[in-house]
Amino acid sequence: MTRPSSALAFAPASVGNVAVGFDVLGHSVPVLGDRVRAVRTPDRGVRIRGVTGVVTDLPLDPARNTAGVAVSALAGALAPGHGFELTIDKGIPLASGLGGSAASAVAAVVAANALLDEPVDALQLLKFAMAGEAVASGATHVDNIAASLYGGLVLTVGIDDPVVTRIPVPDVIRCVLVHPHVQLTTHAAREILARAISLSDVVWQEANLAGFVAGCFTSDLRLIRASLEDVVIEPQRKRLIPGFERVKRAAMAANAIGCSISGAGPTVFAWCEAPDADAVSRGMAGAFEADGIGTDVWIAPIDTAGARVVERS
Amino acid sequence: MTRPSSALAFAPASVGNVAVGFDVLGHSVPVLGDRVRAVRTPDRGVRIRGVTGVVTDLPLDPARNTAGVAVSALAGALAPGHGFELTIDKGIPLASGLGGSAASAVAAVVAANALLDEPVDALQLLKFAMAGEAVASGATHVDNIAASLYGGLVLTVGIDDPVVTRIPVPDVIRCVLVHPHVQLTTHAAREILARAISLSDVVWQEANLAGFVAGCFTSDLRLIRASLEDVVIEPQRKRLIPGFERVKRAAMAANAIGCSISGAGPTVFAWCEAPDADAVSRGMAGAFEADGIGTDVWIAPIDTAGARVVERS
Repeated sequence: MTRPSSALAFAPASVGNVAVGFDVLGHSVPVLGDRVRAVRTPDRGVRIRGVTGVVTDLPLDPARNTAGVAVSALAGALAPGHGFELTIDKGIPLASGLGGSAASAVAAVVAANALLDEPVDALQLLKFAMAGEAVASGATHVDNIAASLYGGLVLTVGIDDPVVTRIPVPDVIRCVLVHPHVQLTTHAAREILARAISLSDVVWQEANLAGFVAGCFTSDLRLIRASLEDVVIEPQRKRLIPGFERVKRAAMAANAIGCSISGAGPTVFAWCEAPDADAVSRGMAGAFEADGIGTDVWIAPIDTAGARVVERS
Repeated sequence: MTRPSSALAFAPASVGNVAVGFDVLGHSVPVLGDRVRAVRTPDRGVRIRGVTGVVTDLPLDPARNTAGVAVSALAGALAPGHGFELTIDKGIPLASGLGGSAASAVAAVVAANALLDEPVDALQLLKFAMAGEAVASGATHVDNIAASLYGGLVLTVGIDDPVVTRIPVPDVIRCVLVHPHVQLTTHAAREILARAISLSDVVWQEANLAGFVAGCFTSDLRLIRASLEDVVIEPQRKRLIPGFERVKRAAMAANAIGCSISGAGPTVFAWCEAPDADAVSRGMAGAFEADGIGTDVWIAPIDTAGARVVERS
């Protein structure tokens, strides 16, 4: 295969934290994502040619753009003799809690990597994409990046030397995502968090996290249901999402397995068994709409592929 | 099979917390344990006939003895027409951090259960044994109880309605246990703990816990090694164990996978691969002995059976 001079990559949206794994767990949302086209240029450096899609007012300055920063990190390490021009096609709404900045960074490094003389592996791409994500959120975290890049439910241990593990998810599970038309910045959602957690809540959350991971590995829906509950972050952040408690009650009344905030919000997600997904989504969207808040709704399987090159020329 | 009138049960020692799962993870130590003989008596109530073994000065008042309280809870719920006489043979040193009170409670309920007209399942026995453990430690926790009862590496989610999951452990792993001849009470070791944990430490510990569980399910020794590190409890408790840091350094220098405090201490445990177990145990014991502290040392596999009836008549 000759090296392409242009590559288009897709990176899925993602649910960060997944209720019980603040900053360490995430899962991809294959029905929604960002696309980035990278073109290899003879001159060094990274240029953003344009932004299209559901978000267009992103900075074109590569030093202030998540995709630009991520590809600049890659170029600095691996492409001494050429540069990249990027075109970003946003499918993920801005500040929705669906990992949009992570997806742009991931799609960008996956596309640029396809143009390298010697492409590198996913773990190296993860580190470049993390550099981009840090620009967007003001903090280095990896849950959305790893989920978007690897696909499925992903655990990342460590920041400086991350170890990424895919956790299998029972086939019957679907994720319902309801995005209310209100905006929250990740920065504001992080600012609200207490800096210390009581030991008893830590123990409870640890039990839930370990139970959730074990329940996924053993396909034990009862254990997943008993564990998929955030007792640390959700109680602090839910006040930022109008009507959250009613939305969650509606999900659980429709037999959801669990319901919490996707990443920093305001999107709310629920896990449920496939036959319940329509009723869960109607209940959740209806609860927002009763407050006069419009929504977008998606239903997606979880154990799916991550970011990938979809076109090269 | 006719109902026996006397049963002897063995319950193994256990490592509580397992570094990353404070109060929720534990694993059994099959080479060491307590034995309890239960005899069915026509009169109601529970009597402690005697205590033998490595500890003999335990209360004979059943209301103040972990085995007595546990069997009294069982008798009150399930044996309206008869009683039990218990003889306790302690194999686990007192206040060693090896789950001795849990093992006595577990062996007692397993033996008594064998004498019931209609024996109950392990989950019900767990709840009776928890009542006994609460007397010993002043707090209801379940990590040692569940590990001793079920055997292997055990996760327990929930206290009122516990869900118990056995987590597979790679065959090659051994646990090295070094018990220094100093005493600590669980009560004192709990008193020293801070009531709040910083959010950043919580995230780090969560990553380690989830990584450890995922590493066990996937037999990923690299991930287990990267994760088996307690950043929350060990830094607070280690000062209670003279020479702890040198002991840990000696374990890690001998290629241990991880090393921390067993339960509330003072026993220190390390996980390692089987070929390294002798060197790890020599290093750890040697570090204590350099300080003039005598030790007992055990090396045990982890994925083994839990409590069981060993004799009935």
